[in-house]
Amino acid sequence: MSTVIVSPVVQEILDLIGIFAFGLSGALLAVRKRFDAVGIAVLAEVTALGGGVLRDVVIGAVPPVAFTDMGYFVTPLVAAALTYFWHPRLARINRFVLIFDAFGLGVFCVAGTIKALNYGMHPLPAAALGVMTAIGGGALRDVLAGEVPALLHPESEIYAVPALLGSALVAGLAALHLLNPVTSGLAALIAVTVRLLALRFGWRAPLARGVGSGDGEG
Amino acid sequence: MSTVIVSPVVQEILDLIGIFAFGLSGALLAVRKRFDAVGIAVLAEVTALGGGVLRDVVIGAVPPVAFTDMGYFVTPLVAAALTYFWHPRLARINRFVLIFDAFGLGVFCVAGTIKALNYGMHPLPAAALGVMTAIGGGALRDVLAGEVPALLHPESEIYAVPALLGSALVAGLAALHLLNPVTSGLAALIAVTVRLLALRFGWRAPLARGVGSGDGEG
Amino acid sequence: MSTVIVSPVVQEILDLIGIFAFGLSGALLAVRKRFDAVGIAVLAEVTALGGGVLRDVVIGAVPPVAFTDMGYFVTPLVAAALTYFWHPRLARINRFVLIFDAFGLGVFCVAGTIKALNYGMHPLPAAALGVMTAIGGGALRDVLAGEVPALLHPESEIYAVPALLGSALVAGLAALHLLNPVTSGLAALIAVTVRLLALRFGWRAPLARGVGSGDGEG
Repeated sequence: MSTVIVSPVVQEILDLIGIFAFGLSGALLAVRKRFDAVGIAVLAEVTALGGGVLRDVVIGAVPPVAFTDMGYFVTPLVAAALTYFWHPRLARINRFVLIFDAFGLGVFCVAGTIKALNYGMHPLPAAALGVMTAIGGGALRDVLAGEVPALLHPESEIYAVPALLGSALVAGLAALHLLNPVTSGLAALIAVTVRLLALRFGWRAPLARGVGSGDGEG
Repeated sequence: MSTVIVSPVVQEILDLIGIFAFGLSGALLAVRKRFDAVGIAVLAEVTALGGGVLRDVVIGAVPPVAFTDMGYFVTPLVAAALTYFWHPRLARINRFVLIFDAFGLGVFCVAGTIKALNYGMHPLPAAALGVMTAIGGGALRDVLAGEVPALLHPESEIYAVPALLGSALVAGLAALHLLNPVTSGLAALIAVTVRLLALRFGWRAPLARGVGSGDGEG
Repeated sequence: MSTVIVSPVVQEILDLIGIFAFGLSGALLAVRKRFDAVGIAVLAEVTALGGGVLRDVVIGAVPPVAFTDMGYFVTPLVAAALTYFWHPRLARINRFVLIFDAFGLGVFCVAGTIKALNYGMHPLPAAALGVMTAIGGGALRDVLAGEVPALLHPESEIYAVPALLGSALVAGLAALHLLNPVTSGLAALIAVTVRLLALRFGWRAPLARGVGSGDGEG
């Protein structure tokens, strides 16, 4: 099974775009919570790199790539600096950040699943690790900021589901020996598209049967 | 020193019962917090597998068994699905879930300590890892749900103490070369019994000297 | 490059003083939150050892030293016991605890960076790991206690910045082949001094441009 979904250079560029988008989302939340410059930098780093670090620690790929590739480490700081100086403008283009973020979600769920497969994991847990790569950083961001992770509650559009879709596609393709740059690129594209459609049309995951969405938490 | 506390098959069945109970407790909290279907599944997985994953990462047993044994991974999803459809009935038998959970606590503190001993840890840190195995998933569950972990504050009956008792017994038995399936089974039984007695009689850990339990937090 | 910044015995004594101070800060927060005896012990352990465990897991130094060296494990329990019995007196000498804690910050950022360098990390990520060693335990403490980590928001004096300064100095010295017991001791001293000055003069990190510090969070 190939470790490449696209050429290494293109892969790294895609990765860095995803990291940059995730870094922006962390930094913007930090500004909204009125954290200071340190808080902005820390939340950018944790959001952008947290998911990949969790994956690498779990599969034993230590030190994680976030600590060995300078580009991975510096990119969130760039996002933090941009946010520090121009956050009102960034907040206005929040929709734009969400699109970037959807892109990161698609790249990370696919790349995370492939890395786990390359470390010898079976398809199902590899897909789970792909999802963890894609959603782990955002969950850490929310916990550090004192909020319940957005992916758990029904006020936000589905986020884990598109990641699960992309990861499951990659795992299925690998099981069928059909994983190659083109098919894995398609898997990422499908994940991105579903996330963007969810944002556009307000798709949410259902509450448990019998739990109304209108009444208070109680 | 033997890695077996009972036959492997019985061990796995015990493990899965514990995982199922922990999964139920995570899923039920998710419903109570009005999380959506994704939140229910994620909280079930994290509660059931979090403690074991933490232990495995700390002792270097990667990838953790939760990611290599399909039964471990799928069981919490079954608990999540049951909760999704029949949570009002499950909530009514909450007492029943607490008994299951006590059982999981006993199995996990003993199995966690034995695994750490098998990885060459000294008895005291092995016991600490056994406690972490037993209480880690529940602590992660509470943090993700935006609550202070139940085991830290005095509104809940003692939870870490029975786990510590079971783990310390196993570590002591190992140091005395008396660890075998019977004695470790007894250690688990003692932990379960103490937890059930704590629930029955409302045993709580004391507050620090001079801190009244009646007045507000201030 | 030498792994020793001072003689091993002196190093261990410095480490244990830092661990003790961090343990006190965790235990005191637990008392303030009205946690029970278990909560006090858990928070002392997590605060004192969390940063080092995170670092060791990331660089692959497992099991972490916190689980193999008895002194590391027992010291926070001593801090917890002292706090349990004499917390009103300790709270009165809170200033004293902050000085201890500054000392721990300095020792940990330097020792963490050196350990990461010894595991073959490049200077910049090694410095990041040094900072993580110094601030990770406190961040875990705050999250478990249900608070936003103090280092993120502007109500607390700068904490990560002195750690970053000490870590960056060590990384720079290593890159210039100037790292030795004297220079690394100086780096620790500079970190401690900056933290103490920040406490004395109320130095804080700036908010993002245009975010007033006076109005509410909204």
